[in-house]
Amino acid sequence: MKINILTLFPEMFDIFNHSIIGKAKEKGLMEIEAINIRDFSLNKHKKVDDYPYGGGAGMVMTPQPIIDAINHCKEANKGKVIFLGPKGKKFNQQMAENLSKEQELIFICGHYEGIDERVYNHIDMEISLGDFILTGGEMAAIPVIDSILRLVNGVLGKEESHMDESFSDGLLEYPQYTRPDDYAGDRVPDILLSGHHEKIRQWRRKQSLLITKNKRPDLFKRVCLSKEDIKLLKEDN
Amino acid sequence: MKINILTLFPEMFDIFNHSIIGKAKEKGLMEIEAINIRDFSLNKHKKVDDYPYGGGAGMVMTPQPIIDAINHCKEANKGKVIFLGPKGKKFNQQMAENLSKEQELIFICGHYEGIDERVYNHIDMEISLGDFILTGGEMAAIPVIDSILRLVNGVLGKEESHMDESFSDGLLEYPQYTRPDDYAGDRVPDILLSGHHEKIRQWRRKQSLLITKNKRPDLFKRVCLSKEDIKLLKEDN
Repeated sequence: MKINILTLFPEMFDIFNHSIIGKAKEKGLMEIEAINIRDFSLNKHKKVDDYPYGGGAGMVMTPQPIIDAINHCKEANKGKVIFLGPKGKKFNQQMAENLSKEQELIFICGHYEGIDERVYNHIDMEISLGDFILTGGEMAAIPVIDSILRLVNGVLGKEESHMDESFSDGLLEYPQYTRPDDYAGDRVPDILLSGHHEKIRQWRRKQSLLITKNKRPDLFKRVCLSKEDIKLLKEDN
Repeated sequence: MKINILTLFPEMFDIFNHSIIGKAKEKGLMEIEAINIRDFSLNKHKKVDDYPYGGGAGMVMTPQPIIDAINHCKEANKGKVIFLGPKGKKFNQQMAENLSKEQELIFICGHYEGIDERVYNHIDMEISLGDFILTGGEMAAIPVIDSILRLVNGVLGKEESHMDESFSDGLLEYPQYTRPDDYAGDRVPDILLSGHHEKIRQWRRKQSLLITKNKRPDLFKRVCLSKEDIKLLKEDN
């Protein structure tokens, strides 16, 4: 996978030199290049923003540097052009899965009060991270790109990849415990120490169901309950 | 505002040395300190994870290093302890506003397949960024912290702060344009060049209403429409 990011702060994407994505980059599983939009400004002071037509507060990113930067990227990257913005479709795991199948992607991070509307003619897709305001598109691009890249083949070990299934059945995960079995008097539930695999599986399933019902009724409503699930939910507590 | 972040990757938070938050830090408006959870591990190999009780894929973060790191932080930071995780309340602008009024906050970033459930006894609040999987809590902490810090007094200029009002009325923003008025044949709408402030205000309001209705019917349903709004929506196109 090849990712280009158009931004005024390319150094922010050094974040992908660390942890899981950093290791995957070292293995050559992906290429991430952040490109400075400012380098494409034809303005003699390398300006990239200007006052909004019609008045109002804040500055708007001018069309020329962004559009020229997109066109430059497109010479070597044939991927979708994705803008991180508040009018976009809300990002979710399904979008991460779809985008992880692409070979190339171009992300655009806006700043100031927005981008000139005419830039939208050069954008294929707008993604929103959620209903909150950020200092810049970089702050949204980072989790979105991370979520896509972790699904690229080879990034996660076989065991880790497997875990996604528990998310894709629409339930929150059951409580996890590791050593020690007694931490300052706070003990691991006996069932997990029992070695009884079937009972452990049932306990975990019941916990997942209860936690999802309790914390995310919106997700729970969409879950398809098996006969066993219904029985587990009817049990005491 | 003072923020402590407990993480296995403190260097990821160098991201806050740039752009708007970077400048605010230089002005002394806030203090951001990322602390390595691994430094608190009592294990001779500084291990921070172990196999899950009851079996299963992946590794679970052990309670001791995280809890000791929390207790260490709490000596100098009396703020809420916030964990970034999938069971949390979905982050939104209202939460950003509430948290921006706090003096101190402690964030915990998990990794691997999760944290030992007993750590929850030391957490005040869990926040989720959305329904997607990340390589680690850092990727969620970054936009959440950014969104909170930009609301701290003095971080944004007076003009920029003002812009938030347009979000808090529950509508998406109208299209913005800046120079040139003609970009490769793509022109700024005449109304914005007219100098007629009242007509510009109405045009913008109408665009906001239409864009929100079109792109975010869920937000639009909750908007309180004025008599003028209803009239604007009834006009042609």
